[in-house]
Amino acid sequence: MTNPVSNFRGQGPTDHPRHMGHEFLGVVEEIGAEVRSVVPGDLVVVPFTYSDNTCEYCRRGLQTSCVHGGAWGMGGVDGGQGQAARIPYADGTLVKLPVAEDSELLPDLLTLSDVLCTGYHAAHTAGVSPGDAVAVIGDGAVGLSAVIAAKLLGAERIILMGRHTQRTDLGREFGATDVVADRGEDGVAAVRELTGGGVARVLECVGLADAVTQAAGVVRDGGVISRVGAPQYPAIPFGFGEFMRNLTLTGGVAPARAYIPELLPRILNGEIHPGRVFDRTVGLEDIAEGYRLMNDREALKVLVRP
Amino acid sequence: MTNPVSNFRGQGPTDHPRHMGHEFLGVVEEIGAEVRSVVPGDLVVVPFTYSDNTCEYCRRGLQTSCVHGGAWGMGGVDGGQGQAARIPYADGTLVKLPVAEDSELLPDLLTLSDVLCTGYHAAHTAGVSPGDAVAVIGDGAVGLSAVIAAKLLGAERIILMGRHTQRTDLGREFGATDVVADRGEDGVAAVRELTGGGVARVLECVGLADAVTQAAGVVRDGGVISRVGAPQYPAIPFGFGEFMRNLTLTGGVAPARAYIPELLPRILNGEIHPGRVFDRTVGLEDIAEGYRLMNDREALKVLVRP
Repeated sequence: MTNPVSNFRGQGPTDHPRHMGHEFLGVVEEIGAEVRSVVPGDLVVVPFTYSDNTCEYCRRGLQTSCVHGGAWGMGGVDGGQGQAARIPYADGTLVKLPVAEDSELLPDLLTLSDVLCTGYHAAHTAGVSPGDAVAVIGDGAVGLSAVIAAKLLGAERIILMGRHTQRTDLGREFGATDVVADRGEDGVAAVRELTGGGVARVLECVGLADAVTQAAGVVRDGGVISRVGAPQYPAIPFGFGEFMRNLTLTGGVAPARAYIPELLPRILNGEIHPGRVFDRTVGLEDIAEGYRLMNDREALKVLVRP
Repeated sequence: MTNPVSNFRGQGPTDHPRHMGHEFLGVVEEIGAEVRSVVPGDLVVVPFTYSDNTCEYCRRGLQTSCVHGGAWGMGGVDGGQGQAARIPYADGTLVKLPVAEDSELLPDLLTLSDVLCTGYHAAHTAGVSPGDAVAVIGDGAVGLSAVIAAKLLGAERIILMGRHTQRTDLGREFGATDVVADRGEDGVAAVRELTGGGVARVLECVGLADAVTQAAGVVRDGGVISRVGAPQYPAIPFGFGEFMRNLTLTGGVAPARAYIPELLPRILNGEIHPGRVFDRTVGLEDIAEGYRLMNDREALKVLVRP
């Protein structure tokens, strides 16, 4: 599978049109002859990779490794940013949303396609448990979703490491008990001071080498770092020192499809409001402006309406 | 804490005498005024790091990170290869052995100081569970101990990767169901063929970069690599590809002290015979010959008698 998250930054211009977008929901217009689980008119959310949901990996909840799976917007498969998209393996991929097309929950439900599930993957694979002290590195939409997830899983202390006050303020509303704006050695020192020696679990939601180093700095010996930021680095500096500290590295690309059944009810019952990460909305015709807003950090995350 | 396992290979000559040895058992000769748990005459086994067994890390079972802990044979602390050794934190470190000084179980019990517990740490932190398919990389004493541990934890299939027939034969007696002598790409292909796509858990008992690459090759997506071979590499090549595969890296230096209470009974009741890794015995005066035997691979592991 190729990188489903590199359509925005980190990719050069293309010489042909490309149907981008890996986070979307919509109304079923037509179905193929073998589709059994959805009918035209259903509102559905689309996980950010498609999967058959029947292979050995899918049955284990790792739909990102589905033997028939893949990513949106590449290899001839449509992306979500458009008037319509053809969905491979619709029965294995789509999850029906039991709300109306004009529901106020739509922004919340849209986060099920990626960021909420990605944050949850970080917390889940890190083994966040009631009473834990957790650090979340990164105050983007995934980091803020990781705060929501850590709280759902019972973390007692959630330290959000980020420098954008507007975002970290939202993080506090989501459940962060502390915010550390410093990065690097200062950030590490601050977290170790706050926690008397480091946290049990770190949710790394950035994907840069510095963030991984920071994660190793704030985690206590025997602790777990779960990374869900797509790595912009070739290797993890886990040599002899980290071996002696018994650090664990886990995480990876999130099998959103696996988590939607457990997270959807928490949105429907109003327990969580992950859609608050969308602070701007643009029409499909203004999508370039949406990208500009995010690139210039004028928006945390932009919702696109068709 | 500095490296407790680099006293043999990988260290240059010293210009002063050094009391080496981190795997030992013996009879208590004298005790300090505050020692409560052992008395002169007790037979005890010594975990390969010392620890107070009361600090926060020790209470969590991570005695290798004990705030008062350290390694044998460095920083003015005695090692085990000698007529006697002073043991810091005797109450926190030593475990009494309920057998006679001349018990035939002594070689088995000696493995509690390091290799059996190290192999067990690999299997335990990898989460080996009943029915699992496990690969063990390395046919040294630790690798063979990891086979024992994987079997104790219920692994159904244990693939031992090693090239020394005498050692892998012992591995089969310890519970390995398959042996793969090939290394690198051929070894990876063989394991993937045997298992229809890779194993759930890999116990990396070598410590070289090639072994880690091999581990990533034989593990299936979503699987776990536990490393207990002391790393001779500065970083783990876990970048974007391994992120997409959701690989977990865990393990580290083994808190032997934590595992002795559960492993000691399995030796006493005859369930396991880890002492079979000792295939040669030398007297203390012939210890240089013991090192030569191991260095030249004429011996798997040498037991030294005082």
